[in-house]
Amino acid sequence: MVSKPGFLDRTLAHLRSAWRDLGQSSACPTNLRLHEDLPETDHLCLLEQMNACLEARGGEVAARAGAARLGNAYMGLNDTGKRQFLLLLAANFDVSTETIDAILSRYQQADPSQRHKIRQQLREALEPPRCRLLTQFNALPQGVKFLVDMRADMHRLGSPETPLLSDLKHDLKELLTAWFDVGFLKLQQITWDSPASLLEKLIEYEAVHEIRNWEDLKHRLTLDRKLFAFFHPNMADEPLIFIQVALVKGLATDIQTVLDETQTPLDSEQADTAIFYSISNAQRGLQGISFGNFLIKRVVSKLKREHPNLKQFSTLSPIPGFQRWLASTIKSNSFGLISRDEWGVISDLAPSDKEAPLVYLLAQKGWHLNHSYCHILQPLLERLCTHYLLREKRRGHQALDPVAHFHLSNGARIEQLNWLADRSEKGLKRSAGLMVNYLYDLDQIESNSEGYSAEGSISTADSVTTIIARH
Amino acid sequence: MVSKPGFLDRTLAHLRSAWRDLGQSSACPTNLRLHEDLPETDHLCLLEQMNACLEARGGEVAARAGAARLGNAYMGLNDTGKRQFLLLLAANFDVSTETIDAILSRYQQADPSQRHKIRQQLREALEPPRCRLLTQFNALPQGVKFLVDMRADMHRLGSPETPLLSDLKHDLKELLTAWFDVGFLKLQQITWDSPASLLEKLIEYEAVHEIRNWEDLKHRLTLDRKLFAFFHPNMADEPLIFIQVALVKGLATDIQTVLDETQTPLDSEQADTAIFYSISNAQRGLQGISFGNFLIKRVVSKLKREHPNLKQFSTLSPIPGFQRWLASTIKSNSFGLISRDEWGVISDLAPSDKEAPLVYLLAQKGWHLNHSYCHILQPLLERLCTHYLLREKRRGHQALDPVAHFHLSNGARIEQLNWLADRSEKGLKRSAGLMVNYLYDLDQIESNSEGYSAEGSISTADSVTTIIARH
Amino acid sequence: MVSKPGFLDRTLAHLRSAWRDLGQSSACPTNLRLHEDLPETDHLCLLEQMNACLEARGGEVAARAGAARLGNAYMGLNDTGKRQFLLLLAANFDVSTETIDAILSRYQQADPSQRHKIRQQLREALEPPRCRLLTQFNALPQGVKFLVDMRADMHRLGSPETPLLSDLKHDLKELLTAWFDVGFLKLQQITWDSPASLLEKLIEYEAVHEIRNWEDLKHRLTLDRKLFAFFHPNMADEPLIFIQVALVKGLATDIQTVLDETQTPLDSEQADTAIFYSISNAQRGLQGISFGNFLIKRVVSKLKREHPNLKQFSTLSPIPGFQRWLASTIKSNSFGLISRDEWGVISDLAPSDKEAPLVYLLAQKGWHLNHSYCHILQPLLERLCTHYLLREKRRGHQALDPVAHFHLSNGARIEQLNWLADRSEKGLKRSAGLMVNYLYDLDQIESNSEGYSAEGSISTADSVTTIIARH
Amino acid sequence: MVSKPGFLDRTLAHLRSAWRDLGQSSACPTNLRLHEDLPETDHLCLLEQMNACLEARGGEVAARAGAARLGNAYMGLNDTGKRQFLLLLAANFDVSTETIDAILSRYQQADPSQRHKIRQQLREALEPPRCRLLTQFNALPQGVKFLVDMRADMHRLGSPETPLLSDLKHDLKELLTAWFDVGFLKLQQITWDSPASLLEKLIEYEAVHEIRNWEDLKHRLTLDRKLFAFFHPNMADEPLIFIQVALVKGLATDIQTVLDETQTPLDSEQADTAIFYSISNAQRGLQGISFGNFLIKRVVSKLKREHPNLKQFSTLSPIPGFQRWLASTIKSNSFGLISRDEWGVISDLAPSDKEAPLVYLLAQKGWHLNHSYCHILQPLLERLCTHYLLREKRRGHQALDPVAHFHLSNGARIEQLNWLADRSEKGLKRSAGLMVNYLYDLDQIESNSEGYSAEGSISTADSVTTIIARH
Repeated sequence: MVSKPGFLDRTLAHLRSAWRDLGQSSACPTNLRLHEDLPETDHLCLLEQMNACLEARGGEVAARAGAARLGNAYMGLNDTGKRQFLLLLAANFDVSTETIDAILSRYQQADPSQRHKIRQQLREALEPPRCRLLTQFNALPQGVKFLVDMRADMHRLGSPETPLLSDLKHDLKELLTAWFDVGFLKLQQITWDSPASLLEKLIEYEAVHEIRNWEDLKHRLTLDRKLFAFFHPNMADEPLIFIQVALVKGLATDIQTVLDETQTPLDSEQADTAIFYSISNAQRGLQGISFGNFLIKRVVSKLKREHPNLKQFSTLSPIPGFQRWLASTIKSNSFGLISRDEWGVISDLAPSDKEAPLVYLLAQKGWHLNHSYCHILQPLLERLCTHYLLREKRRGHQALDPVAHFHLSNGARIEQLNWLADRSEKGLKRSAGLMVNYLYDLDQIESNSEGYSAEGSISTADSVTTIIARH
Repeated sequence: MVSKPGFLDRTLAHLRSAWRDLGQSSACPTNLRLHEDLPETDHLCLLEQMNACLEARGGEVAARAGAARLGNAYMGLNDTGKRQFLLLLAANFDVSTETIDAILSRYQQADPSQRHKIRQQLREALEPPRCRLLTQFNALPQGVKFLVDMRADMHRLGSPETPLLSDLKHDLKELLTAWFDVGFLKLQQITWDSPASLLEKLIEYEAVHEIRNWEDLKHRLTLDRKLFAFFHPNMADEPLIFIQVALVKGLATDIQTVLDETQTPLDSEQADTAIFYSISNAQRGLQGISFGNFLIKRVVSKLKREHPNLKQFSTLSPIPGFQRWLASTIKSNSFGLISRDEWGVISDLAPSDKEAPLVYLLAQKGWHLNHSYCHILQPLLERLCTHYLLREKRRGHQALDPVAHFHLSNGARIEQLNWLADRSEKGLKRSAGLMVNYLYDLDQIESNSEGYSAEGSISTADSVTTIIARH
Repeated sequence: MVSKPGFLDRTLAHLRSAWRDLGQSSACPTNLRLHEDLPETDHLCLLEQMNACLEARGGEVAARAGAARLGNAYMGLNDTGKRQFLLLLAANFDVSTETIDAILSRYQQADPSQRHKIRQQLREALEPPRCRLLTQFNALPQGVKFLVDMRADMHRLGSPETPLLSDLKHDLKELLTAWFDVGFLKLQQITWDSPASLLEKLIEYEAVHEIRNWEDLKHRLTLDRKLFAFFHPNMADEPLIFIQVALVKGLATDIQTVLDETQTPLDSEQADTAIFYSISNAQRGLQGISFGNFLIKRVVSKLKREHPNLKQFSTLSPIPGFQRWLASTIKSNSFGLISRDEWGVISDLAPSDKEAPLVYLLAQKGWHLNHSYCHILQPLLERLCTHYLLREKRRGHQALDPVAHFHLSNGARIEQLNWLADRSEKGLKRSAGLMVNYLYDLDQIESNSEGYSAEGSISTADSVTTIIARH
Repeated sequence: MVSKPGFLDRTLAHLRSAWRDLGQSSACPTNLRLHEDLPETDHLCLLEQMNACLEARGGEVAARAGAARLGNAYMGLNDTGKRQFLLLLAANFDVSTETIDAILSRYQQADPSQRHKIRQQLREALEPPRCRLLTQFNALPQGVKFLVDMRADMHRLGSPETPLLSDLKHDLKELLTAWFDVGFLKLQQITWDSPASLLEKLIEYEAVHEIRNWEDLKHRLTLDRKLFAFFHPNMADEPLIFIQVALVKGLATDIQTVLDETQTPLDSEQADTAIFYSISNAQRGLQGISFGNFLIKRVVSKLKREHPNLKQFSTLSPIPGFQRWLASTIKSNSFGLISRDEWGVISDLAPSDKEAPLVYLLAQKGWHLNHSYCHILQPLLERLCTHYLLREKRRGHQALDPVAHFHLSNGARIEQLNWLADRSEKGLKRSAGLMVNYLYDLDQIESNSEGYSAEGSISTADSVTTIIARH
């Protein structure tokens, strides 16, 4: 039985009486037609429907049908209406603090031997009734997708300052975390034989290196290129997360080459290395429910089995926080990473009124095409970047760079730093053109991961470690 | 982050030290070979593995792999070992009362505006850590089936008096309730074209009218007989619950005829009635997680769509509690349901030393073949049975008979009582050979269900209501 | 047993001896590596392999494996080599005229009662042994596709004047006719959910109205647009023929509108007419094996069933031979279709040295944008076109226009002529911008078809018939 | 265009006039209701329908629809009616001898350069028009199965002495040979997960060792037992031929052990030998169209790939003609296979009035349980059987025993003779309890097959060859 907050009944009584004062019956139309911005005159009707679903007096089957109608009504609302709908749901179907206080007072007085049972009651009372309503939306034909999208709505409409929506979002996260347990996900290779309607979504969802058109997409799906995704059985035509792989010879050091459709494809028997060059989350509504670590490792296992000649598994990754860190930190030579001479050279290249000459230089369009700039900047930036990756932390042990943190948590090793590896506008702007290979060595993943999570120790190839010392 | 009970660390420390005293290293073999009855010498190893899964220090992927090893080890145990395994899991990964008490004391002192956040912490602290371990078992190839079977083990091994196991069973029920949300279930018709390995399970799981052999099974799957089941996408070769339907002309009044393979099948265009003559839960581990109501209604909708000539949807159901109730209640004519004359006749038929002559008579083998007995018993038993169905209650409003309660909750109507409708041994023993038709009228289901759940009012056909008055 | 022509043995003996004279063993490498233009030095090897397949002395399984090797070798040849391969096959595995003459002489002398048996022998002797070899190529993984493509090669490499290849092409046609019996073909709707690799082929194969890009393609597959194709079970990823349908309100009169992606799609419940606006054969190797009539009728039945509100089924077709006919015929006003006045006006518009002023005018770029031209040309061209469609014949009864002949054979009716219905370059050049609706009325198809095939009578709407009289 | 025999038009004219004389219109009902034994009054209607299909005047689509109606009508006939139907089809749609004679006379007079074209015409004229009608039946939903079953009907209803039906059967064989080209067949493993409706057919079709019940069937499909079948894509739920395999250690020498459900199954990693212990054709209508050789070899390849530890592939086969040969041949010791002493001993065991004492002995029930009999009979029967297998021939080189001929054609080797290997009633009666292993050694198959088909040479293990000399 659901413990319903007493204030809901009071709210409903209040609204009904206000409604009667207006001389109108409160009866909701059975098709539940709401105005798309959900004005106050629609609230009573909506709350009564929500309440009916919760009480399920006509049976759970009827309650689910009602929830499906509510869900359809929600989908017909505009953003104002959706926000209102979510706020009503969050506010009116919260936990009952009265009930909780009552249970707590019994708990205090209870004999220790009886407390066990009361804890159970307490736990139930702490689960907001709206959770049940959220579950009931699964009655919609695409119920799971509906809830995932609803959570994306909460994210979009709740920011920045709506605690009620953030509570609701938390409730929904709990539900989705259970439903999207990684044990339910299917790893599937997406190929050029996959449905066009699915491939179209890859173009939309790709977050790292934009897919420019269908030819670009085909290039990423055929011959020496592969793409793998996780799917949920109840959301079969929506990838949850996907990863793109290039089979190459030796570590790939340059994203331009990987993406170049005109390169002659490598015979798959000659490849010895799998490069993970892009990983994208496809569902904003699953934010905070993480599958990336599972995806990479299951893809590594699959590739190993199907291509026994592959000896190395590595990413070619951006360093998205590097330039931001540079801009916020390297204003003067405050910590010995830049020699006096270097600082001098750089300062000379920037106008004298610039406080941050390095940042200034890197903001110049086309700097990377200027050989003399590069000559100066390469050793300096490689050193700074190595420092950034290995030593800059947040929340205690975590690497400051989010991509680094992700792969290090997974147990990868920082294998190689690549100069001018991403010369796209975005790559220059965020990573100063640098990219890094995170290597997945299955034999070391577990201990690396343990070391990183326990003490923040970062597994690093010697060639990278020594960069810092070079000056 | 998981809040782990402090006592687990203490237990582990204690066991490790005891182990060292024995001069042995505590290292668990990586393949986790346990003795099949799980003697005490295996406990440390097992607890350490469980603890490692929970801590997931080498990453969640490694933790899941560990959980899979634990699950495999569990499957290798005998019942003694399984019980021990479950008890260790329940006892050592329970909630931490210390943590809870600490949170509660903060809650009492907190400002009302801060309590919201503390309630959230309290809710998390009230979730036992073992729940996470249960979830991790989903890493097994057939993880969902594993957990369902594990819950069946808890049921079998926990009874009657093990509160720890019953807590664990409750935790697992919560998890399975989320995973087996009815929105995930697929309704499938099972036919003679279904895999033999699946059909074999129907023979095993059928709980109402035994399937005697493959010919009997084929008869229930072809022509004017149909069988529908709910499946979960992650347990694709296991029915969860299934229902058997006979397409007939008019209400079926006799289960013998329905099951008779030698009857000429009805041309499906002539049928006007669908009779649900058996519904069986197939997974003991899902006990208490109910799908029957959804199944019936989805089958009704499906049949309506595919066979527009069907006008009536009804069960032909046993009355399993009738004889038990008779035996416990009808010792003398205490409530006016039996006339003095009737009582006299019945008493004369039984030896004079029998306290309960009616029960005595019904225990005589072959009584139903004796016409003079039937002549006396039919009006009497029909009256008693109607009384039993309509008036005998438990827990307030609920019908005493469990099958009646199920169908009445679903909104069905008691349509007809059928004399000698089940002359099998089981049918005579439990229902005195009587069966009842519960009618599903889609237009009335919701209001019936509401009336029954609110006030226990039972929708009944006139022809049944009047039986009580007949004497 | 295969009757092998004597001359093959003689040819082989000759080649073998020539080979020995060169001091070389005739042994073929088992992997059958041929030079890609198949020089004479490869002939002996190739013929021996073909002969071995035919004799199948090591069993039929080995012979098939040999045929597969031959097929792979063929695929490695260039056009010169392929042509040579086909010629060798055609010439050396033809029927044995000696055998036929021997049978015929027995036939003449035989008793009528024995002739039945001899006719059977004659029939077998008339089947060239190369037919068996063609069949054996079905051992290739994509054997059916291989043979279809080989027949396309014969078409391409045999033209114009190679009777041997045209015999071989005929043999292969017989085989493919049996294999591609329409009873084996599956009608499938191709949608935006179909594999991209299949959709890509539609872009390549579309022969009527070019598919410009993936957006254009998507528009033709979604909402009020549909595409259906026939597939063969052994060539599952290759459409054989496909047809494109627009669901519209009233007869579509203008292909530009049909193809316009920016039009608001019609709600499928409002559509009352299905317009077949393109039908393309996808496999040149199946030329002469016709499925178009079956495809249209099966699509009509399918649409009728799935969209009961559709009342009319019609094409919007080009008139591809119209301008060619105009150019070859309308040099002066020789048959009363053009009035003296009209001729005068048109002649005035063209330079005086032009023999065929009408053709001259229609060759002027942009004539259709010139209102005064259109004013003059519309009545004239509509009249000429109607005459062309209804009265110009070839091979006795057949309509001269190939598209008209196809639809009239199928039993369609000429329903409507549409002015400036195709303003593309191709449409103006071939059909002077005119298009015609051929209407498929299922009730009349059979009798129309019978009338047309027996006497060339053409079912025509009154509004079209009267066009001729209009001047 | 179809060349239709002139006599059909004459027959139709005759029947129509006879019909009119009876005062009845000849119009066939469109639903083509025939009496089930097809009396003469139905012939005109039937022939007209057949003729209409052939002429296809309303188009090929309509003709196919007509053929489908004819097919349905055929299925409604009893055996008398079916035979009549087939005879009418065979007789009235035969080749036209007039046409053929006309072509022949042109051929004789023609210039050699023109004969090529005339041969083509001759070939077409020699194809009976009924072939086209047979093809048109493919319009039925299960058209392929219909024709296969129709050919089985021809077999059953045509024997022994109906040349017309045997011609028709030949025509149909040609069609089915093209359609059932082995390149189209799919090899599928049938398992306990296959549809019950399919498994049921195995029980029905098994021709070698009867499948007694569903438990026996399950035993043959699970663990160390496998079953493979060929399927045609247009007859997807009907196996064409299937083979049963036992994975064992060493050559199986005894069918009782193979079939024994109570034997502990072998761990598949321990097996080194695959025993083919049964191969059954499932479709009588495909008699003479052979797939067995392909099936065995494809199963060998598949097993080799999936179970690399298998080193030997062999049958355990009956010797079905052995006893028949014994009975017809071994009446006295006429050829030195039986020594005088042996003959004496055997003669003493049989009553003196028996001409064939060996045959007499083998006809005694339970002889194989009598040790002293076995002591005498084993060396003698093994010698005779070896002689029978290796030296008794028919049609020149072929082994007299049909099973031996099948496997030797396929290139197998006679590996071992097994005493009392089949003690079933059938095994004792046909093979005197003996069985033989035919070994498939992929390296030798091709040369064995070539040797056998060219010269009848039989590959035999030494241990078998020496049996003959033993006495």
